[in-house]
Amino acid sequence: MEREFILYSSKGFTAPFDLNDLTKGRMDLVARCISAAFFISYGIRENTIFHVFLNGPPDPPRQITLKGVKSMGFLPDEKSIAKRLNEILKFGENLELNKEIRIGNIKIAKKSFENFLKKLQGKKIIYLHRRGKDVRSYKFPEKFVVIVGGHRGLPQKTEKFLERLGADKVSLGRIEYSASHCITILHNELDRRFG
Amino acid sequence: MEREFILYSSKGFTAPFDLNDLTKGRMDLVARCISAAFFISYGIRENTIFHVFLNGPPDPPRQITLKGVKSMGFLPDEKSIAKRLNEILKFGENLELNKEIRIGNIKIAKKSFENFLKKLQGKKIIYLHRRGKDVRSYKFPEKFVVIVGGHRGLPQKTEKFLERLGADKVSLGRIEYSASHCITILHNELDRRFG
Repeated sequence: MEREFILYSSKGFTAPFDLNDLTKGRMDLVARCISAAFFISYGIRENTIFHVFLNGPPDPPRQITLKGVKSMGFLPDEKSIAKRLNEILKFGENLELNKEIRIGNIKIAKKSFENFLKKLQGKKIIYLHRRGKDVRSYKFPEKFVVIVGGHRGLPQKTEKFLERLGADKVSLGRIEYSASHCITILHNELDRRFG
Repeated sequence: MEREFILYSSKGFTAPFDLNDLTKGRMDLVARCISAAFFISYGIRENTIFHVFLNGPPDPPRQITLKGVKSMGFLPDEKSIAKRLNEILKFGENLELNKEIRIGNIKIAKKSFENFLKKLQGKKIIYLHRRGKDVRSYKFPEKFVVIVGGHRGLPQKTEKFLERLGADKVSLGRIEYSASHCITILHNELDRRFG
Protein backbone atom coordinates (compact mmCIF):
# COMPACT_ATOMS: atom_id res chain seq x y z
CA MET A 1 0.00 0.00 0.00
CA GLU A 2 1.30 3.39 -0.96
CA ARG A 3 1.98 6.02 1.72
CA GLU A 4 1.80 9.63 0.75
CA PHE A 5 2.70 12.58 2.97
CA ILE A 6 2.21 16.28 2.37
CA LEU A 7 4.03 19.00 4.27
CA TYR A 8 2.98 22.65 4.10
CA SER A 9 5.92 24.95 4.80
CA SER A 10 4.93 28.62 5.12
CA LYS A 11 8.51 29.93 5.17
CA GLY A 12 10.47 27.29 3.22
CA PHE A 13 12.73 28.75 0.54
CA THR A 14 11.67 28.62 -3.10
CA ALA A 15 15.20 29.02 -4.55
CA PRO A 16 18.63 27.68 -3.48
CA PHE A 17 19.40 28.63 0.15
CA ASP A 18 22.28 28.80 2.63
CA LEU A 19 23.34 25.28 3.68
CA ASN A 20 25.19 26.56 6.73
CA ASP A 21 22.09 27.52 8.70
CA LEU A 22 19.13 25.29 7.92
CA THR A 23 17.01 26.83 10.66
CA LYS A 24 16.43 29.82 8.33
CA GLY A 25 13.10 29.17 6.61
CA ARG A 26 12.88 26.02 8.78
CA MET A 27 14.57 23.97 6.07
CA ASP A 28 15.87 21.77 8.95
CA LEU A 29 12.29 20.74 9.66
CA VAL A 30 11.62 20.01 5.97
CA ALA A 31 14.78 17.85 5.87
CA ARG A 32 13.82 15.96 9.04
CA CYS A 33 10.40 15.18 7.58
CA ILE A 34 11.99 13.79 4.41
CA SER A 35 14.37 11.70 6.53
CA ALA A 36 11.45 10.34 8.58
CA ALA A 37 9.37 9.62 5.47
CA PHE A 38 11.98 7.55 3.62
CA PHE A 39 14.66 6.10 5.89
CA ILE A 40 14.61 2.95 7.93
CA SER A 41 17.69 1.43 9.56
CA TYR A 42 19.26 -0.18 6.52
CA GLY A 43 17.04 0.87 3.68
CA ILE A 44 14.53 3.11 1.99
CA ARG A 45 10.75 2.97 2.09
CA GLU A 46 10.06 2.50 -1.60
CA ASN A 47 6.27 2.64 -1.10
CA THR A 48 6.40 6.27 0.05
CA ILE A 49 5.78 9.58 -1.70
CA PHE A 50 6.54 12.91 -0.06
CA HIS A 51 5.36 16.33 -1.18
CA VAL A 52 6.45 19.63 0.32
CA PHE A 53 4.81 22.93 -0.53
CA LEU A 54 7.27 25.77 0.00
CA ASN A 55 5.85 29.26 0.43
CA GLY A 56 8.81 31.38 1.47
CA PRO A 57 10.97 33.80 -0.53
CA PRO A 58 11.93 34.55 -3.24
CA ASP A 59 9.36 33.07 -5.65
CA PRO A 60 6.50 31.14 -3.98
CA PRO A 61 4.99 28.66 -4.35
CA ARG A 62 7.07 25.56 -5.14
CA GLN A 63 5.99 21.96 -4.82
CA ILE A 64 8.74 19.36 -4.55
CA THR A 65 7.69 15.71 -4.80
CA LEU A 66 9.99 12.77 -4.04
CA LYS A 67 9.20 9.11 -4.63
CA GLY A 68 11.06 6.47 -2.62
CA VAL A 69 13.67 4.63 -4.66
CA LYS A 70 16.61 2.43 -3.63
CA SER A 71 19.06 5.30 -3.95
CA MET A 72 17.49 8.61 -2.96
CA GLY A 73 20.64 10.60 -3.78
CA PHE A 74 21.06 11.63 -0.14
CA LEU A 75 21.75 10.20 3.30
CA PRO A 76 19.36 10.55 6.26
CA ASP A 77 21.16 13.61 7.69
CA GLU A 78 19.68 17.10 7.38
CA LYS A 79 22.55 18.64 5.46
CA SER A 80 22.69 15.94 2.82
CA ILE A 81 18.94 16.26 2.24
CA ALA A 82 19.17 20.07 2.15
CA LYS A 83 21.92 19.88 -0.50
CA ARG A 84 19.61 17.78 -2.69
CA LEU A 85 16.70 20.19 -2.13
CA ASN A 86 19.00 22.99 -3.23
CA GLU A 87 19.78 21.18 -6.49
CA ILE A 88 16.08 20.53 -7.09
CA LEU A 89 15.18 24.19 -6.43
CA LYS A 90 17.89 25.16 -8.92
CA PHE A 91 16.22 22.95 -11.60
CA GLY A 92 12.94 24.70 -10.87
CA GLU A 93 14.10 28.29 -11.14
CA ASN A 94 12.02 30.44 -13.49
CA LEU A 95 9.13 27.94 -13.61
CA GLU A 96 5.84 29.47 -14.67
CA LEU A 97 2.70 29.01 -12.56
CA ASN A 98 1.30 25.45 -12.74
CA LYS A 99 4.30 24.23 -14.77
CA GLU A 100 6.49 21.35 -13.59
CA ILE A 101 9.75 19.52 -14.29
CA ARG A 102 10.36 15.81 -13.62
CA ILE A 103 13.77 14.19 -13.19
CA GLY A 104 13.64 10.50 -12.26
CA ASN A 105 11.89 10.10 -8.92
CA ILE A 106 11.73 13.88 -8.41
CA LYS A 107 9.27 16.53 -9.47
CA ILE A 108 9.38 20.27 -8.93
CA ALA A 109 6.37 22.43 -9.80
CA LYS A 110 5.15 25.95 -9.27
CA LYS A 111 1.88 24.81 -7.82
CA SER A 112 -0.05 25.75 -4.68
CA PHE A 113 -1.01 23.45 -1.83
CA GLU A 114 -4.70 24.32 -2.29
CA ASN A 115 -4.72 23.61 -6.03
CA PHE A 116 -2.90 20.33 -5.55
CA LEU A 117 -5.41 19.13 -2.94
CA LYS A 118 -8.42 20.18 -4.99
CA LYS A 119 -7.20 18.01 -7.85
CA LEU A 120 -6.49 14.87 -5.80
CA GLN A 121 -8.83 12.26 -7.19
CA GLY A 122 -10.19 9.28 -5.26
CA LYS A 123 -7.81 9.79 -2.34
CA LYS A 124 -9.02 10.52 1.17
CA ILE A 125 -7.26 13.46 2.82
CA ILE A 126 -6.15 12.83 6.40
CA TYR A 127 -4.76 15.55 8.62
CA LEU A 128 -3.23 15.11 12.04
CA HIS A 129 -4.50 16.81 15.14
CA ARG A 130 -4.30 15.76 18.74
CA ARG A 131 -8.07 16.12 19.06
CA GLY A 132 -8.90 13.93 16.03
CA LYS A 133 -10.01 10.28 15.88
CA ASP A 134 -7.51 7.91 17.48
CA VAL A 135 -5.18 6.53 14.80
CA ARG A 136 -5.08 3.11 16.50
CA SER A 137 -8.78 2.51 15.87
CA TYR A 138 -9.02 4.56 12.66
CA LYS A 139 -10.08 2.60 9.58
CA PHE A 140 -7.67 3.70 6.85
CA PRO A 141 -9.27 4.07 3.43
CA GLU A 142 -7.69 2.22 0.53
CA LYS A 143 -6.15 5.39 -0.90
CA PHE A 144 -5.19 8.35 1.21
CA VAL A 145 -2.75 11.23 1.65
CA VAL A 146 -1.63 12.52 5.04
CA ILE A 147 -1.03 16.19 5.71
CA VAL A 148 1.57 16.73 8.42
CA GLY A 149 1.76 20.19 9.87
CA GLY A 150 2.81 19.43 13.39
CA HIS A 151 0.39 17.87 15.84
CA ARG A 152 -0.94 21.21 17.10
CA GLY A 153 -2.93 21.28 13.89
CA LEU A 154 -3.04 23.61 10.92
CA PRO A 155 -4.11 27.25 10.60
CA GLN A 156 -7.91 27.50 11.07
CA LYS A 157 -8.38 28.64 7.48
CA THR A 158 -6.56 25.54 6.20
CA GLU A 159 -8.54 23.22 8.50
CA LYS A 160 -11.80 24.68 7.16
CA PHE A 161 -10.57 24.24 3.59
CA LEU A 162 -9.68 20.60 4.33
CA GLU A 163 -13.05 19.96 5.94
CA ARG A 164 -14.76 21.24 2.80
CA LEU A 165 -12.75 18.63 0.90
CA GLY A 166 -14.08 15.94 3.26
CA ALA A 167 -10.82 15.37 5.14
CA ASP A 168 -10.56 13.14 8.23
CA LYS A 169 -8.89 14.48 11.39
CA VAL A 170 -6.74 11.81 13.04
CA SER A 171 -4.90 11.85 16.37
CA LEU A 172 -1.63 10.17 17.39
CA GLY A 173 -2.16 10.90 21.08
CA ARG A 174 -2.43 13.90 23.37
CA ILE A 175 1.04 15.36 22.78
CA GLU A 176 1.79 18.07 20.22
CA TYR A 177 4.41 16.19 18.23
CA SER A 178 6.63 17.86 15.66
CA ALA A 179 5.90 17.13 12.02
CA SER A 180 8.75 14.65 11.46
CA HIS A 181 7.82 12.70 14.60
CA CYS A 182 4.22 12.52 13.35
CA ILE A 183 5.50 10.83 10.19
CA THR A 184 7.56 8.30 12.18
CA ILE A 185 4.64 7.42 14.47
CA LEU A 186 2.22 7.11 11.56
CA HIS A 187 4.64 4.89 9.60
CA ASN A 188 4.88 2.64 12.67
CA GLU A 189 1.09 2.33 12.89
CA LEU A 190 0.86 1.52 9.16
CA ASP A 191 3.77 -0.97 9.43
CA ARG A 192 1.95 -2.82 12.20
CA ARG A 193 -1.35 -2.92 10.31
CA PHE A 194 -0.29 -3.47 6.73
CA GLY A 195 3.34 -4.70 7.06
CA MET B 1 7.47 8.95 35.18
CA GLU B 2 11.05 9.43 34.15
CA ARG B 3 12.21 8.26 30.71
CA GLU B 4 15.84 7.38 30.27
CA PHE B 5 17.50 6.47 26.97
CA ILE B 6 20.99 5.14 26.33
CA LEU B 7 22.72 5.23 22.96
CA TYR B 8 25.90 3.28 22.26
CA SER B 9 27.93 4.91 19.50
CA SER B 10 30.90 2.82 18.37
CA LYS B 11 32.43 5.57 16.20
CA GLY B 12 31.22 8.80 17.83
CA PHE B 13 33.99 11.32 18.44
CA THR B 14 35.43 11.76 21.92
CA ALA B 15 36.83 15.28 21.34
CA PRO B 16 35.54 18.31 19.37
CA PHE B 17 34.79 17.37 15.75
CA ASP B 18 34.12 18.97 12.34
CA LEU B 19 30.64 20.57 12.29
CA ASN B 20 30.58 20.71 8.50
CA ASP B 21 30.17 16.97 7.97
CA LEU B 22 28.25 15.32 10.78
CA THR B 23 28.10 11.97 8.97
CA LYS B 24 31.74 11.41 10.03
CA GLY B 25 31.60 9.31 13.20
CA ARG B 26 27.80 9.28 12.69
CA MET B 27 27.42 12.36 14.86
CA ASP B 28 24.31 13.12 12.73
CA LEU B 29 22.68 10.01 14.18
CA VAL B 30 23.65 10.99 17.74
CA ALA B 31 22.15 14.46 17.16
CA ARG B 32 18.91 13.03 15.73
CA CYS B 33 18.52 10.78 18.76
CA ILE B 34 18.93 13.76 21.10
CA SER B 35 16.38 15.71 19.06
CA ALA B 36 13.91 12.80 19.23
CA ALA B 37 14.48 12.33 22.96
CA PHE B 38 13.80 15.91 24.02
CA PHE B 39 11.77 17.88 21.49
CA ILE B 40 8.04 18.04 21.01
CA SER B 41 6.31 20.60 18.83
CA TYR B 42 6.47 23.60 21.14
CA GLY B 43 8.45 22.35 24.07
CA ILE B 44 10.92 20.09 25.79
CA ARG B 45 10.33 16.76 27.49
CA GLU B 46 11.52 17.64 30.98
CA ASN B 47 11.01 14.09 32.25
CA THR B 48 13.70 12.70 29.93
CA ILE B 49 17.35 11.79 30.43
CA PHE B 50 19.61 10.86 27.54
CA HIS B 51 23.01 9.20 27.75
CA VAL B 52 25.35 8.62 24.83
CA PHE B 53 28.48 6.48 25.08
CA LEU B 54 31.00 7.60 22.47
CA ASN B 55 33.73 5.15 21.52
CA GLY B 56 35.43 6.75 18.53
CA PRO B 57 38.73 8.66 18.29
CA PRO B 58 40.75 10.25 19.75
CA ASP B 59 40.27 9.30 23.43
CA PRO B 60 37.49 6.76 24.10
CA PRO B 61 35.29 6.32 25.99
CA ARG B 62 33.16 9.37 26.81
CA GLN B 63 29.72 9.39 28.36
CA ILE B 64 27.59 12.49 27.82
CA THR B 65 24.38 12.76 29.84
CA LEU B 66 21.69 15.39 29.23
CA LYS B 67 18.66 16.02 31.40
CA GLY B 68 15.61 17.71 29.87
CA VAL B 69 15.21 21.30 31.02
CA LYS B 70 13.14 24.18 29.63
CA SER B 71 16.09 25.60 27.73
CA MET B 72 18.38 22.87 26.43
CA GLY B 73 20.88 25.32 24.91
CA PHE B 74 20.12 24.06 21.40
CA LEU B 75 17.36 23.84 18.82
CA PRO B 76 16.05 20.54 17.40
CA ASP B 77 18.28 20.69 14.29
CA GLU B 78 21.33 18.45 13.95
CA LYS B 79 23.90 21.21 13.62
CA SER B 80 22.75 23.12 16.68
CA ILE B 81 22.88 19.92 18.76
CA ALA B 82 26.30 19.01 17.33
CA LYS B 83 27.66 22.45 18.30
CA ARG B 84 26.55 21.86 21.87
CA LEU B 85 28.11 18.37 21.89
CA ASN B 86 31.34 19.95 20.71
CA GLU B 87 31.33 22.37 23.66
CA ILE B 88 30.62 19.53 26.07
CA LEU B 89 33.45 17.40 24.62
CA LYS B 90 35.74 20.41 25.04
CA PHE B 91 34.83 20.57 28.78
CA GLY B 92 35.68 16.89 29.06
CA GLU B 93 39.10 16.92 27.43
CA ASN B 94 41.83 15.31 29.53
CA LEU B 95 39.38 13.56 31.86
CA GLU B 96 40.84 10.59 33.70
CA LEU B 97 39.12 7.18 33.58
CA ASN B 98 35.92 7.09 35.67
CA LYS B 99 36.08 10.83 36.38
CA GLU B 100 33.27 13.19 35.47
CA ILE B 101 32.34 16.89 35.21
CA ARG B 102 28.85 18.29 35.72
CA ILE B 103 27.59 21.60 34.39
CA GLY B 104 23.90 22.30 35.04
CA ASN B 105 21.81 19.65 33.27
CA ILE B 106 24.89 18.18 31.57
CA LYS B 107 27.43 15.59 32.60
CA ILE B 108 30.50 14.37 30.75
CA ALA B 109 32.46 11.39 32.06
CA LYS B 110 35.19 9.06 30.89
CA LYS B 111 33.13 6.00 31.64
CA SER B 112 32.32 2.88 29.64
CA PHE B 113 28.87 1.68 28.61
CA GLU B 114 29.44 -1.66 30.35
CA ASN B 115 30.52 -0.11 33.64
CA PHE B 116 27.62 2.30 33.62
CA LEU B 117 25.10 -0.50 33.09
CA LYS B 118 26.62 -2.72 35.76
CA LYS B 119 26.15 0.05 38.30
CA LEU B 120 22.51 0.87 37.48
CA GLN B 121 20.59 0.12 40.62
CA GLY B 122 16.95 -0.89 40.76
CA LYS B 123 16.32 -0.01 37.13
CA LYS B 124 15.20 -2.57 34.57
CA ILE B 125 17.23 -2.51 31.35
CA ILE B 126 15.16 -2.64 28.17
CA TYR B 127 16.69 -3.06 24.74
CA LEU B 128 14.89 -2.81 21.45
CA HIS B 129 14.82 -5.59 18.90
CA ARG B 130 12.25 -6.40 16.27
CA ARG B 131 12.00 -9.95 17.62
CA GLY B 132 11.37 -8.91 21.25
CA LYS B 133 8.11 -8.74 23.22
CA ASP B 134 5.57 -6.41 21.63
CA VAL B 135 5.84 -2.96 23.24
CA ARG B 136 2.07 -2.46 23.06
CA SER B 137 1.41 -5.31 25.49
CA TYR B 138 4.67 -4.96 27.45
CA LYS B 139 4.25 -4.19 31.14
CA PHE B 140 6.73 -1.40 31.83
CA PRO B 141 8.45 -1.67 35.20
CA GLU B 142 8.33 1.34 37.51
CA LYS B 143 11.95 2.24 36.80
CA PHE B 144 13.71 1.45 33.57
CA VAL B 145 16.31 2.57 31.04
CA VAL B 146 16.02 1.92 27.30
CA ILE B 147 19.02 1.10 25.15
CA VAL B 148 18.53 2.23 21.57
CA GLY B 149 20.94 0.84 19.04
CA GLY B 150 18.75 0.71 15.98
CA HIS B 151 15.98 -1.85 15.69
CA ARG B 152 18.18 -4.51 14.06
CA GLY B 153 19.49 -5.09 17.56
CA LEU B 154 22.90 -4.81 19.15
CA PRO B 155 26.13 -6.73 18.57
CA GLN B 156 25.72 -10.32 19.84
CA LYS B 157 28.34 -9.77 22.55
CA THR B 158 26.40 -6.77 23.87
CA GLU B 159 23.08 -8.65 23.78
CA LYS B 160 24.63 -11.47 25.82
CA PHE B 161 26.00 -8.96 28.31
CA LEU B 162 22.56 -7.34 28.64
CA GLU B 163 20.89 -10.70 29.10
CA ARG B 164 23.27 -11.46 31.97
CA LEU B 165 22.08 -8.20 33.54
CA GLY B 166 18.46 -9.42 33.21
CA ALA B 167 17.45 -7.07 30.41
CA ASP B 168 14.11 -7.28 28.60
CA LYS B 169 14.01 -7.38 24.79
CA VAL B 170 11.14 -5.28 23.45
CA SER B 171 9.85 -4.88 19.89
CA LEU B 172 8.25 -1.89 18.18
CA GLY B 173 7.13 -3.91 15.15
CA ARG B 174 8.71 -5.90 12.35
CA ILE B 175 10.64 -3.05 10.70
CA GLU B 176 14.30 -2.29 11.44
CA TYR B 177 13.85 1.32 12.53
CA SER B 178 16.75 3.70 12.97
CA ALA B 179 17.69 4.61 16.52
CA SER B 180 16.09 8.07 16.56
CA HIS B 181 12.83 6.69 15.17
CA CYS B 182 12.83 4.04 17.91
CA ILE B 183 12.95 6.83 20.49
CA THR B 184 10.03 8.68 18.86
CA ILE B 185 7.87 5.54 18.66
CA LEU B 186 8.67 4.57 22.25
CA HIS B 187 7.89 8.08 23.52
CA ASN B 188 4.52 7.84 21.75
CA GLU B 189 3.72 4.52 23.45
CA LEU B 190 4.70 5.92 26.85
CA ASP B 191 2.71 9.13 26.19
CA ARG B 192 -0.40 7.08 25.47
CA ARG B 193 0.03 4.90 28.55
CA PHE B 194 1.29 7.29 31.16
CA GLY B 195 0.45 10.73 29.68
